[in-house]
Amino acid sequence: MQGREGHTATLFRKDPLKLDSGATLSPVNVGYETYGSLNADRSNAIIICHALTGDQYVASTHPITGKEGWWSRLVGPGKLYDTDKYFIICSNVLGSCLGTTGPWEENPATGKPWGIDFPVITIRDMVRVQAALLDHLGVETLLMAVGGSMGGMQILEWLCTFPERVHSAVILAAAARHTAQNIAFHEVGRQAVMADPNWHEGRYYDKAAKPDKGLAVARMTAHITYLSENALTEKFGRNLQSREAISFGFEADFQVESYLRHQGSTFVDRFDANSYLYITRAMDYLDIADRHGGRLSDAFKKAAHVRCCVISFSTDWLYPTSENKAVAHALNAAGVPVSFAEIDSPYGHDAFLLDVPQMDHMLTGFLSTAAKTRGLK
Amino acid sequence: MQGREGHTATLFRKDPLKLDSGATLSPVNVGYETYGSLNADRSNAIIICHALTGDQYVASTHPITGKEGWWSRLVGPGKLYDTDKYFIICSNVLGSCLGTTGPWEENPATGKPWGIDFPVITIRDMVRVQAALLDHLGVETLLMAVGGSMGGMQILEWLCTFPERVHSAVILAAAARHTAQNIAFHEVGRQAVMADPNWHEGRYYDKAAKPDKGLAVARMTAHITYLSENALTEKFGRNLQSREAISFGFEADFQVESYLRHQGSTFVDRFDANSYLYITRAMDYLDIADRHGGRLSDAFKKAAHVRCCVISFSTDWLYPTSENKAVAHALNAAGVPVSFAEIDSPYGHDAFLLDVPQMDHMLTGFLSTAAKTRGLK
Repeated sequence: MQGREGHTATLFRKDPLKLDSGATLSPVNVGYETYGSLNADRSNAIIICHALTGDQYVASTHPITGKEGWWSRLVGPGKLYDTDKYFIICSNVLGSCLGTTGPWEENPATGKPWGIDFPVITIRDMVRVQAALLDHLGVETLLMAVGGSMGGMQILEWLCTFPERVHSAVILAAAARHTAQNIAFHEVGRQAVMADPNWHEGRYYDKAAKPDKGLAVARMTAHITYLSENALTEKFGRNLQSREAISFGFEADFQVESYLRHQGSTFVDRFDANSYLYITRAMDYLDIADRHGGRLSDAFKKAAHVRCCVISFSTDWLYPTSENKAVAHALNAAGVPVSFAEIDSPYGHDAFLLDVPQMDHMLTGFLSTAAKTRGLK
Repeated sequence: MQGREGHTATLFRKDPLKLDSGATLSPVNVGYETYGSLNADRSNAIIICHALTGDQYVASTHPITGKEGWWSRLVGPGKLYDTDKYFIICSNVLGSCLGTTGPWEENPATGKPWGIDFPVITIRDMVRVQAALLDHLGVETLLMAVGGSMGGMQILEWLCTFPERVHSAVILAAAARHTAQNIAFHEVGRQAVMADPNWHEGRYYDKAAKPDKGLAVARMTAHITYLSENALTEKFGRNLQSREAISFGFEADFQVESYLRHQGSTFVDRFDANSYLYITRAMDYLDIADRHGGRLSDAFKKAAHVRCCVISFSTDWLYPTSENKAVAHALNAAGVPVSFAEIDSPYGHDAFLLDVPQMDHMLTGFLSTAAKTRGLK
């Protein structure tokens, strides 16, 4: 995407990245941001993993939207994730569109954008790239790995794949697998993108028009799943737009319609349609237990030294408490020290991005203990 | 739509139908089916109102799909709604596409299909047409009005608008208003249709291609809301299609994807995209309390003589028990005798269409009492 600012690392130049699919990628560019400084004994690094349509600008201005970082409430000098104390790393995931290699990037073999010739990736592939970025940054071990939603799924893959590099982990509003309903909603979104004639089987990068309408519909559908029914009712109810009465037409009569249309139309300015296909696919493929003979706890056998914190939100129906609890139970069964809490919140899945004091309270306490046990003051 | 069979009545020839929008329609064609015979004292008529994408073929073969009627399990000789005893009427709703006037029909003023020049309609408008059909059939009073989902919404409008013509009423899995989340899902569906370039601002009837892709996406989204998360998990879970492993591609790897695609692609053969826009709009506009100063019970003031039965299903998250209970409470507050039950069912909203013995049991008892109190044996 145009207008990106910040750092880019070019990794896997010599040894290609081996993907779960069997395909390889070389090189792999990674767009990332860091905040604060790595201390002398390299013990204060925290990686924050972003969600499906998130980005590395966790605490800096988004280069396209101009909006402040998506977790700038919690990341910065003197804040919960205090950049005066910690070295915070956030990178754009593999397959996304803000500087990290994805379907929008040039395929070295053809000199043209990959489109849907880009290999299908997994959440674990995303984490492999993050591990290589840590190598690049000289970080061997993370004080903490933190993520919500798809970010939380990445943290789980950290615990499976690179447990020796993690001291503590926070998993917010996530799951260790995608359910049938999760897959169903994503499939609708993908079909909306692919139904757009401007999608051109993924080869739209040299065209004047992009599959914006399809991508907007995909975003609108997904957005409904990010909010609780109550949150939508509280926020909009059946309130009308500026009109005094219903129009008996197909314009946006209700505020909720106008809100969703806005969500759809602004999203397409900052996100690539093919990236949306690839990342949703990676999420749908997630089934950590399946890789371990159906027993989720077996996935975390080598993570018994990692202090974990799992948080769910009471009105999250996308990754409900039951899925988060299954993660906490599996960690427990694997001997991993884990604290679990369901936080009462009316906001639905998006709660992890919002100002939820009880979450802040838990995260603060957990970070403080993790830092102490790591020998930090 | 082509291939329709059955009866058509042409109504509102002299006196046009006055719509809630202020517009008028004349004439209005109504596609309908009847089963059984009206008895001598015209006391055994039951109207069954269909849901959003339902039709009048409640107990006969669908002319396009060739499938048996959507409630043939319950309607027929010797069945719950016994056509040896009762005169069953089911008509295609106003705005739909199986013989009843809608956007697909010729606009008398132009000689061309209405498209989106067709006036926006309401659930009450649908019921006005049904009342005129009863006049046409010589039925003054209904022994019973029965409907699920949007059918149940029509029953509520019967109770508000023509209570004197109803002896008893069954409202299944319905609501007296559309919530913000209900509107949101419908708006996504409408935007999917309108995003399809083959929609041509609703003027596609003379074109070779119809907005099938957009309509299929709309149907897929809606279909997710008809099933409970549990039902999807029970039915599909993460089961793969015939392949042995995931394909690392964008074909339908999971059975739930293939199922949804099938739901989308078969729907477009039997339904008109503009009809989908109009009927979803009518549902979104429904807010019976709002028309009565915000007090739902005031809507039912003249229905105190009508025996009512309201049924919700435990896993219905589209029109959940809370919304059905609000209806039952309002009926109660208006002095209407009402029995209410939440039936435990794993199937989500679609339960009212499925074999749910506890529902049959309630409907049987309720019909038997209603018939007795009407003097039928």
